[in-house]
Amino acid sequence: MKFIDGGVCAPKGFLAAGIHCGIRKGKDKLDLALIFSKEQCNAASVYTTNKVKSAPIYVTKKNLENNKARAIICNSGIANACVSDGIEKAQRMCELAAIQLKIDQEEVIVASTGVIGQSLNISPIENSIADLADKLSVNGSDMAANAIMTTDTVKKEFAVQVEIDGKAVKLGGICKGSGMINPNMATMLAFITTDVYISDNMLKKALKNVCDKTFNCVSVDGDTSTNDMLSILANGNAENKLIDTENSDFDVFEKALLELCTALAKAIAKDGEGATKLLECVVVNSSSEQTARNLAKSVIMSPLVKTAFFGADANWGRILCALGYADSPLAVDKVDITLKSPMGSILVCKNGQGVEFSEDDAKLILLENEIVIYVDLNDGDKKGSAFGCDLSYDYVKINGDYRT
Amino acid sequence: MKFIDGGVCAPKGFLAAGIHCGIRKGKDKLDLALIFSKEQCNAASVYTTNKVKSAPIYVTKKNLENNKARAIICNSGIANACVSDGIEKAQRMCELAAIQLKIDQEEVIVASTGVIGQSLNISPIENSIADLADKLSVNGSDMAANAIMTTDTVKKEFAVQVEIDGKAVKLGGICKGSGMINPNMATMLAFITTDVYISDNMLKKALKNVCDKTFNCVSVDGDTSTNDMLSILANGNAENKLIDTENSDFDVFEKALLELCTALAKAIAKDGEGATKLLECVVVNSSSEQTARNLAKSVIMSPLVKTAFFGADANWGRILCALGYADSPLAVDKVDITLKSPMGSILVCKNGQGVEFSEDDAKLILLENEIVIYVDLNDGDKKGSAFGCDLSYDYVKINGDYRT
Repeated sequence: MKFIDGGVCAPKGFLAAGIHCGIRKGKDKLDLALIFSKEQCNAASVYTTNKVKSAPIYVTKKNLENNKARAIICNSGIANACVSDGIEKAQRMCELAAIQLKIDQEEVIVASTGVIGQSLNISPIENSIADLADKLSVNGSDMAANAIMTTDTVKKEFAVQVEIDGKAVKLGGICKGSGMINPNMATMLAFITTDVYISDNMLKKALKNVCDKTFNCVSVDGDTSTNDMLSILANGNAENKLIDTENSDFDVFEKALLELCTALAKAIAKDGEGATKLLECVVVNSSSEQTARNLAKSVIMSPLVKTAFFGADANWGRILCALGYADSPLAVDKVDITLKSPMGSILVCKNGQGVEFSEDDAKLILLENEIVIYVDLNDGDKKGSAFGCDLSYDYVKINGDYRT
Repeated sequence: MKFIDGGVCAPKGFLAAGIHCGIRKGKDKLDLALIFSKEQCNAASVYTTNKVKSAPIYVTKKNLENNKARAIICNSGIANACVSDGIEKAQRMCELAAIQLKIDQEEVIVASTGVIGQSLNISPIENSIADLADKLSVNGSDMAANAIMTTDTVKKEFAVQVEIDGKAVKLGGICKGSGMINPNMATMLAFITTDVYISDNMLKKALKNVCDKTFNCVSVDGDTSTNDMLSILANGNAENKLIDTENSDFDVFEKALLELCTALAKAIAKDGEGATKLLECVVVNSSSEQTARNLAKSVIMSPLVKTAFFGADANWGRILCALGYADSPLAVDKVDITLKSPMGSILVCKNGQGVEFSEDDAKLILLENEIVIYVDLNDGDKKGSAFGCDLSYDYVKINGDYRT
């Protein structure tokens, strides 16, 4: 498996584009993205668990009932959530895309991200949809990745290539994370394309498995948005033998999808609102993967852990404390904690108790911007990870000041 | 029921004291507190749910197996958690107090708050215990309340009086909240005294009921400490008829305990690390009290809600979002949200959707330092509340910088 260029247009048969249509102020800020497959795709999606859901979530769910799709349209600026005309507007976005692309309205996945509780002005989309469709190209992933950004500071776009059944199979993805110019909440959106030939059931299975280990293990602030969505389109253009069971081809595909989604999820964590550091908590030698992930998430979500790392403070007591209040079993007196970064690694806690270590060495390690909190439970052979970021002054600034 | 002076010494038969013994630097900072009842008390306690527990928690649990106690000793500065000699040191604290007070070692409740993972130096306590016992007086609550503080900026001390069985019954309490000079985590400790005559079972019941509605509904940052503890001593000096069943006397006592603990819990929330505002979320017309409290806690714990209120931003979308991801049922399209403060109240969301409101009026209301987020579920007749604070730059500063 190797990482390649091209984002969502790396797989054969996919085109993308992104433009400024006028939902957002500032001509430079792209606000409307389109991804299109020349042929029909098997499609699968994972949605926010929030009971307050945006209108595009409902419309996409309905459109994917037959597990088929050919296009994704997404705007930034307005979340199209908690408004009376939300469904109508989301459907209209599908209709506009469908007319231009000469496909059925039900073949369109729709997503939005931005302010909630404000009505989406559909005119800018109506006026620009022809232009957007015209701009569709194999070089369009970059523009699409830019158009779904809100206060993301970097675009998030990756692609990978594997060999399946002797054929080159490609997967590409773009996503956006937390942070908006005028946000009401952080939203996670990710769109994946692939030219693999795979049944809808197997596609759904791979997406669910991988999502649990990647996007569901990212936390910037613990707030689950109304608009979160992860979608995948598979058009079969790679012409491999159909994957319709859990065979070795499926394993290769799922592993590639895992690598791609891990890269995207880490990019979201690293670009969290106000973040100065990527934090990864790796829990090893656990009795189960679920337990390992739960414990890792608890550490990554703790505001006290997050602020300690912002301050480059080897405050292992907070890590142990966060492990302790997670809703999972924990043999406290077996826990070892090591802090790692490109500058080295340092053991700070052994058997649930502090060990002597050099604060100077620890500081040197923690001043780096990618930190691994390595927790050895010494209680099994399973592992799990979670990704997050530190909590900085800028998080407070971004989220306290933006409507003034 | 009325609030009175005197803190934990308001009830008959209780003495208290607080001194600087030398666990903490700076002669002005008291670091050792003692509360004493002249007669034996029925006692009850509620402990942290964290699987990582401090040594004093284990020792107190053991000592309270017979539901009897006469004294509480508590130090600040060192948490006595995650160290190999913790139990030994906590037992020694009980022994030292017992010798001075001429009581059994098992009649002592012990608590600590401060840095975890560092060994407690017992010498300062050994050297000062006689002085501390000498200073015990009916005016000592103030000093005891000061001695258990860490980075708390105000002491937290209240007392109330009710009439039960024709007798004046008094309850007093002191507590400390989140924030320490050199903390590894926030710790909540609360000690309650009362002269009511009540069985140990009924005392335990009242404490549990009230704790769920008060201290368990406070959140500064969602981190549950290793040292959290709430203890109550009841010495029977008020000479009311024994309360040994859930009769009207019990109700009066429990209500008084609720008022006292609500005042203490609110004081903790308002003095949360870096807090500029007290936030109270009141959820009404719910199908159950449990649901109402869960929803209220979810709102109070949301970093996005907390930062919005720091910025005095009427960002109701975040409130609805936090209600939506709580692990409780929610009929989104029935939810009304009103923001209240001494400056007035303003409806911001009706039936789960935004309503037009004056941003200027909202700002005026939200610039106050005590805000109520009033959520009407229109879905039953039960209610529940949670208390918290906003998330400010100073929270990040206090928790990111303190070991440098």
